[in-house]
Amino acid sequence: MDIDVLVLDVNETLTDLEPLRDRFAQAGLPRESLDVWFAATLRDGFALTAAGAYAEFRTIGADILTELLGVSDEEVVNEVLKGFTTLPLHPDVAPGLTRIHEAGIRIITLTNGSAAMSQQVFADGGILDLLEHRLDVGVPQRWKPHPDSYRHAADVCGVPVERMGLAAVHPWDIDGAQRAGLTGIHIDRRKTPYPKAFRTPDVTVPDFQALAEALPAKES
Amino acid sequence: MDIDVLVLDVNETLTDLEPLRDRFAQAGLPRESLDVWFAATLRDGFALTAAGAYAEFRTIGADILTELLGVSDEEVVNEVLKGFTTLPLHPDVAPGLTRIHEAGIRIITLTNGSAAMSQQVFADGGILDLLEHRLDVGVPQRWKPHPDSYRHAADVCGVPVERMGLAAVHPWDIDGAQRAGLTGIHIDRRKTPYPKAFRTPDVTVPDFQALAEALPAKES
Repeated sequence: MDIDVLVLDVNETLTDLEPLRDRFAQAGLPRESLDVWFAATLRDGFALTAAGAYAEFRTIGADILTELLGVSDEEVVNEVLKGFTTLPLHPDVAPGLTRIHEAGIRIITLTNGSAAMSQQVFADGGILDLLEHRLDVGVPQRWKPHPDSYRHAADVCGVPVERMGLAAVHPWDIDGAQRAGLTGIHIDRRKTPYPKAFRTPDVTVPDFQALAEALPAKES
Repeated sequence: MDIDVLVLDVNETLTDLEPLRDRFAQAGLPRESLDVWFAATLRDGFALTAAGAYAEFRTIGADILTELLGVSDEEVVNEVLKGFTTLPLHPDVAPGLTRIHEAGIRIITLTNGSAAMSQQVFADGGILDLLEHRLDVGVPQRWKPHPDSYRHAADVCGVPVERMGLAAVHPWDIDGAQRAGLTGIHIDRRKTPYPKAFRTPDVTVPDFQALAEALPAKES
């Protein structure tokens, strides 16, 4: 795997969403409803992208929460979504990315969420200074896995998509990146059978420390 | 609302998915996991569509079930998915569609699932003879809400999209149909606040009997 830029997905790939379950419970929802909320939020974001349209992650996330609650309650919705600004990073992220950065590989984030929402999370987790850019899909107005989202990242970095690798836990993201011309890197935190509907990842590693070992250092 | 062809979504709009919860329980999964399964199946189908690709509903549905189970077990997966062939129709569907058919409006179905999978359900529910076509997205190879899926239905019927109305319980479907030029009809079975990320439906009715009252008879 020979890449110049490592593109990181954020939610679940870098951050651990588990603490959000407490906020769902405080809102009176079952703790398990985090799972249907996240799947449905992505579902509706992808639907708009497939239809040629766009809405912000926050708007859709609030819509789905409102549907789960059965009523509009802006205060409760805000309290749940605020949880995204205080999530922990998975323990392998900071040591792995530090080594990848030291090896001379440029690192950026590309999220369907808001780039601003995770600034404090990255600062607290000790990786903010390792990130050359923190991008979201607000500029291309197409959610990942639409090819324009990945091309936007390549444009910002001034490299062809073929010089980039996209690392994610989500098969739909890895698959879309590969179709757009990037190297797809599966961070296999879940250990469940890989879905057949998506292309096989170019690279699979258990976590970011293993990825650091797999990436050759760049000549500087 | 002046339309020549009524296009019906199938899953949840015509059929009641609730009996599937028993099959999830028999497979050792929580009954509530039907909700995350359905959301995640649509999520991955829409993701492939957004990336310019395609897989069958059954393939993706089996992938998501496998992920929920944590292991590959083809027999268990088949047993759960077989439930789609024996679902009941919502009680308003047959009387409502009968009246709409009698009023001279052409009726078709358009599903992201397989058209074959619901033939017996429609026969048992007494609506099979009312349906001029039963379409799925296998021909356009784009899931709803991609505009090509709705255009395919218009091509088969030989009418412009503007002469069609799409009826669904799902905001993403109604929104996509409206963006493609159809009249969007919201069958509001859920009574939850309508999501802000999507366009307001052209028409909202509580069920198909109310829709039959709202549709003017065609001159024949």
